[in-house]
Amino acid sequence: MRNVDAMIFPRWIAPVQPAGVVYREHALVIDRGKIVDCCPATTARQTYSASATYERPDHLLIPGLVNAHTHAAMSLMRGMADDLELMEWLQAHVWPAEKQWVSRDFVRDGTTLAVAEMLTGGTTCCNDMYFFPDVAAQTSADLGMRFVTGIIVLDGPSPWAADLEEYLVKGLEMRDSFRGTPLVHTIFAPHSPYTVGDEALLRVRKLADELDAPVHIHLHESAEEIEQSVARFGKRPIARLDDLGLINPQLLAVHLTQVTEEEIECLARGGARVVHCPESNMKLASGFCPVVDLVDHGITVALGTDGAASNNDLCMLGEMRTASLLGKVVSGRADALSAHETLQMATLAGARALGLDEQIGSLEPGKWADTVAIDLAALNTQPVYDPVSQLVYAASRDCVGDVWVAGRHLVVDGRLVDVDTEDLRELSARWQKRLQPFARRPENNGE
Amino acid sequence: MRNVDAMIFPRWIAPVQPAGVVYREHALVIDRGKIVDCCPATTARQTYSASATYERPDHLLIPGLVNAHTHAAMSLMRGMADDLELMEWLQAHVWPAEKQWVSRDFVRDGTTLAVAEMLTGGTTCCNDMYFFPDVAAQTSADLGMRFVTGIIVLDGPSPWAADLEEYLVKGLEMRDSFRGTPLVHTIFAPHSPYTVGDEALLRVRKLADELDAPVHIHLHESAEEIEQSVARFGKRPIARLDDLGLINPQLLAVHLTQVTEEEIECLARGGARVVHCPESNMKLASGFCPVVDLVDHGITVALGTDGAASNNDLCMLGEMRTASLLGKVVSGRADALSAHETLQMATLAGARALGLDEQIGSLEPGKWADTVAIDLAALNTQPVYDPVSQLVYAASRDCVGDVWVAGRHLVVDGRLVDVDTEDLRELSARWQKRLQPFARRPENNGE
Repeated sequence: MRNVDAMIFPRWIAPVQPAGVVYREHALVIDRGKIVDCCPATTARQTYSASATYERPDHLLIPGLVNAHTHAAMSLMRGMADDLELMEWLQAHVWPAEKQWVSRDFVRDGTTLAVAEMLTGGTTCCNDMYFFPDVAAQTSADLGMRFVTGIIVLDGPSPWAADLEEYLVKGLEMRDSFRGTPLVHTIFAPHSPYTVGDEALLRVRKLADELDAPVHIHLHESAEEIEQSVARFGKRPIARLDDLGLINPQLLAVHLTQVTEEEIECLARGGARVVHCPESNMKLASGFCPVVDLVDHGITVALGTDGAASNNDLCMLGEMRTASLLGKVVSGRADALSAHETLQMATLAGARALGLDEQIGSLEPGKWADTVAIDLAALNTQPVYDPVSQLVYAASRDCVGDVWVAGRHLVVDGRLVDVDTEDLRELSARWQKRLQPFARRPENNGE
Repeated sequence: MRNVDAMIFPRWIAPVQPAGVVYREHALVIDRGKIVDCCPATTARQTYSASATYERPDHLLIPGLVNAHTHAAMSLMRGMADDLELMEWLQAHVWPAEKQWVSRDFVRDGTTLAVAEMLTGGTTCCNDMYFFPDVAAQTSADLGMRFVTGIIVLDGPSPWAADLEEYLVKGLEMRDSFRGTPLVHTIFAPHSPYTVGDEALLRVRKLADELDAPVHIHLHESAEEIEQSVARFGKRPIARLDDLGLINPQLLAVHLTQVTEEEIECLARGGARVVHCPESNMKLASGFCPVVDLVDHGITVALGTDGAASNNDLCMLGEMRTASLLGKVVSGRADALSAHETLQMATLAGARALGLDEQIGSLEPGKWADTVAIDLAALNTQPVYDPVSQLVYAASRDCVGDVWVAGRHLVVDGRLVDVDTEDLRELSARWQKRLQPFARRPENNGE
């Protein structure tokens, strides 16, 4: 018998790799933060002796969900300004609020709230793009969640940095400082084609090439962005990035609600990856990302919630559901984006898009033990024909029972251990009062 | 001081009427199943003495949600056959399963599961269309949920009735038998244009006119339905119903994913009501209902989940979110279907569509005390700027704290009183085994 740290005995395991498979009567064996085996339960009980054993007789075990695009600290702006399109939302509410209030404290508190929500919702890794990325990453690491943080780049000054040099220097220093923190990964994050000029993009490309790191950018999110690009540069943003040499396998392009067939082929040829954020695109009326087309062209498409101010939650269960349903009706194919394919989008595709598919994204020996046990005994998930279908089309947030990241048991019976939720509520309420002047008041509000 | 049965003191009240208003520091006063007052809390405490007082300091109180279109007992088929379009789904899986298994027991058990799910999700009234409508209605009434049941009509025999005469006689008898049951309302429910012929539709129209009762029908749900109608009758279904005199204020037309501008004007002129089922339309890739257009034409649009086999839940919170997000992106207007408008669609519009808007749908004196307290202290609903925004865009199913129907406290702290959930699970599992032969097996399923 080999001694290991933990064994989980669920009712079903959906490893994601091999694709579309569901195991019954299997166990996941974990040691020193990694998966060492996924085998029949009887074999596991004969082969291993675990310090901790988790019997989960009603549960489906899946890889931890990967939220491939978010602005975590914007959780503090949840519901602050609804019913607006992207540019007006940013210019009239978000940017003015950030200009006044974004600070290390804002990012620490907002990221804490976001990570707490994400973990209890079954997300074990997120890809963040926000100010004070060092604070955001450290906050998440302290809470035990895997975090991909961005060396952000903008054309103008911000509370984080004054100019291009400072954005890059601080970002690279941050990257170095997290070398010894396995939970934190650093990539490049030039904000968007309308906030970052050619010079900065070329600098980012050079560094990304040298360090072989992903480049995370908003791209073709709205018609207005494209019109502005044509007016300013004489070409659409994808063409501009292509001319700058950025359409390559490191590119992590988010949104893509306005794309031509030629642009899809360009992205496919370049090996670029895409993050699809259906709820944000819908809420801001930005448009439809042709996900099924992208997938048909062999493009890796991951899933993200975007920030809580344009969603308005950070729930990957809901995002999977929306992605699958929207993909079917937009493509006109009821068989598009099946439950299994959608789960893969929310796990392994996210890992691949972030360059982490050898470390996370599926339940296979050698990968980190980032895993979630979903309780399918709830009334809204009866009766079960296919547990993965139930996960994607029926499970609710409260079905998330346990969450492990790198083998650490962070969520037990739906609750985050070691987090003072009352504290977090008071913290959030204080920020709400400060941000209230930037909110959009609804008509006839009796308050 | 006047003695009353109950008083609820929430943090906010969204009465829905007046529209868009949110009251703070107000109380809802209930006596003998009805709302007697909605007034400032201080006034309430001085004016009334209640047998039961509910302090809900973190909660938003709303009218109970009205699920305006479902097939409750189909909860037993949840996840049985995904990734199929409407007609193939019905013909290859649903109808064969129903032919073999639908019975009084099936409907009793399936409706029990559905009502349990709906109540704990904040739904206090649903409009059902299924076999053995008498059993379904009695089941719901026994559990305390308001239920609109249908005098169903189909062209062929079913386990419920052999022919048109029997469908009508049994249906009218059922209607009479529920006269003394305030929780149960009966309307006419000819299934669809492709399953009900002209003679039957004319008979239904006559009876509906005599009894001034709504006529609930699937209409323009798929392109195939329209093609079949043109081939068979030489006209589209709406034109056919118009020729039969059915486009009037009693019509409750469900889906409408394929409508021309002229058809919308026809429905508007006729005063017809519509039920929008976005998740079902998306899952079956049926198409997009032009909700914002319908509303702009003055048509009352209600909201429904459809059956759990094409959704796959019966959650009206999720349906509101999807309706709002989809409405914005389909119309291209980020300000369409605001949170307040969407809540109204899920409550008062549903009541109006069912002819019950004098009895339910808003928190106003004289109406039934069908109301739900939503707990907004959860992390995924922090911080709160507008509680109704939070409800529609961030709240999860587990935020439903309390549910009252006709003043009876049915759900306490998220749990259904008086229902053996373990029993219900075993019941569901037994039906799952029986229905399994009709399921669509996913590829590579390791089971």
